[in-house]
Amino acid sequence: MRRTIDKSEIKNWEDRSRARLINGLSGAKSANLIGTQNTEGKTNLSIVSSCFHLGSNPALLGMIIRPATVPRHTFENILSTTTWTMNHVNSEISAAAHQTSARYPREVSEFKAVNLDPIYLNDFPAPFVEQANVRIGLRLADHIHIEINKTELLIGEIEFIDLPEDCILSDGHFDINAAGSVAISGLDEYHQLESIARYAYAKPNIPVKKVDKA
Amino acid sequence: MRRTIDKSEIKNWEDRSRARLINGLSGAKSANLIGTQNTEGKTNLSIVSSCFHLGSNPALLGMIIRPATVPRHTFENILSTTTWTMNHVNSEISAAAHQTSARYPREVSEFKAVNLDPIYLNDFPAPFVEQANVRIGLRLADHIHIEINKTELLIGEIEFIDLPEDCILSDGHFDINAAGSVAISGLDEYHQLESIARYAYAKPNIPVKKVDKA
Repeated sequence: MRRTIDKSEIKNWEDRSRARLINGLSGAKSANLIGTQNTEGKTNLSIVSSCFHLGSNPALLGMIIRPATVPRHTFENILSTTTWTMNHVNSEISAAAHQTSARYPREVSEFKAVNLDPIYLNDFPAPFVEQANVRIGLRLADHIHIEINKTELLIGEIEFIDLPEDCILSDGHFDINAAGSVAISGLDEYHQLESIARYAYAKPNIPVKKVDKA
Repeated sequence: MRRTIDKSEIKNWEDRSRARLINGLSGAKSANLIGTQNTEGKTNLSIVSSCFHLGSNPALLGMIIRPATVPRHTFENILSTTTWTMNHVNSEISAAAHQTSARYPREVSEFKAVNLDPIYLNDFPAPFVEQANVRIGLRLADHIHIEINKTELLIGEIEFIDLPEDCILSDGHFDINAAGSVAISGLDEYHQLESIARYAYAKPNIPVKKVDKA
């Protein structure tokens, strides 16, 4: 049975239920731990499902932050230090990663609270996660306030990547299965990825087999 | 063996290899077919891996478009009609979905070229994909030009959702496995999702078991 839910019905849903549904509708989301520290060196770690690819030359990643929520320490640290780390969540650390979303007081480091270890690489000032396979150091390249819902888009340029060699295939493709990186759906469900296929670069005039309707 | 690749090394990579690597580094990406039509009713369909959740009240989704690439017809259609549809890609239609990324001439509808059927719902002016389980009608709410790499952020408000009833759990959570929606990594790899766990709303003072380093 199919169901249609329109804008006015969505508006009338109970807040938490609406948040659960709408957060799921974009589809699969990346699962990243964002590592920062303040100007006094106090570390912070926050699970973020809103990191996305923005461009490859220059290599830019975007991230949406709602300053009124938990990642506000992350937001403040990035503005003051202009650096952060992105650490792919794998299935071994997904429970710990999710736990960073608890509202810890400012003086508590989530690293310690959730039992993940900070590690510093190449003199980069923000902390990485020792238990993550894929680690990326980013420097703030732009900051756009999105007025319509008071969110902040932070754009970071990749300073360096630190990852297992076998996650990069000979043609440059990042092998997310080799990395073990997981996906998030909605607010709280974590998933492993199982490869269906890599498709060739698409060109016109390749016929596609008919598929039945949903 | 771990490997570190810094900014200057990334810059020197061959273009296509760099694009493959950097496109993978954000992690799992959503796989959506964007349906539009121009003011004459000519339809267009484009695979987009850059749709993301922006907010749930109002219900907003964002999407990054690089106007110089294939989705430029999509971009032009959205600006002129202010509406588009998002259709979750499932494993049955992933090959067809990827094929929409070929550079078809403007007069060719990707619906026809890749053998997917347009369907119109609730008098909404943009075409949905009949073979998709999860379909979302969006209206342009904001458009932000991102100067740093000449990309466009399109923000759409959800007008309505059309999906199988069993994709919404009793607490509102969207069950992406029931929907069969897939994820993309990099430029061309498609994945099914296998649930690891749903975690409870995180609160401080829940201990987390120590995990070994990567």
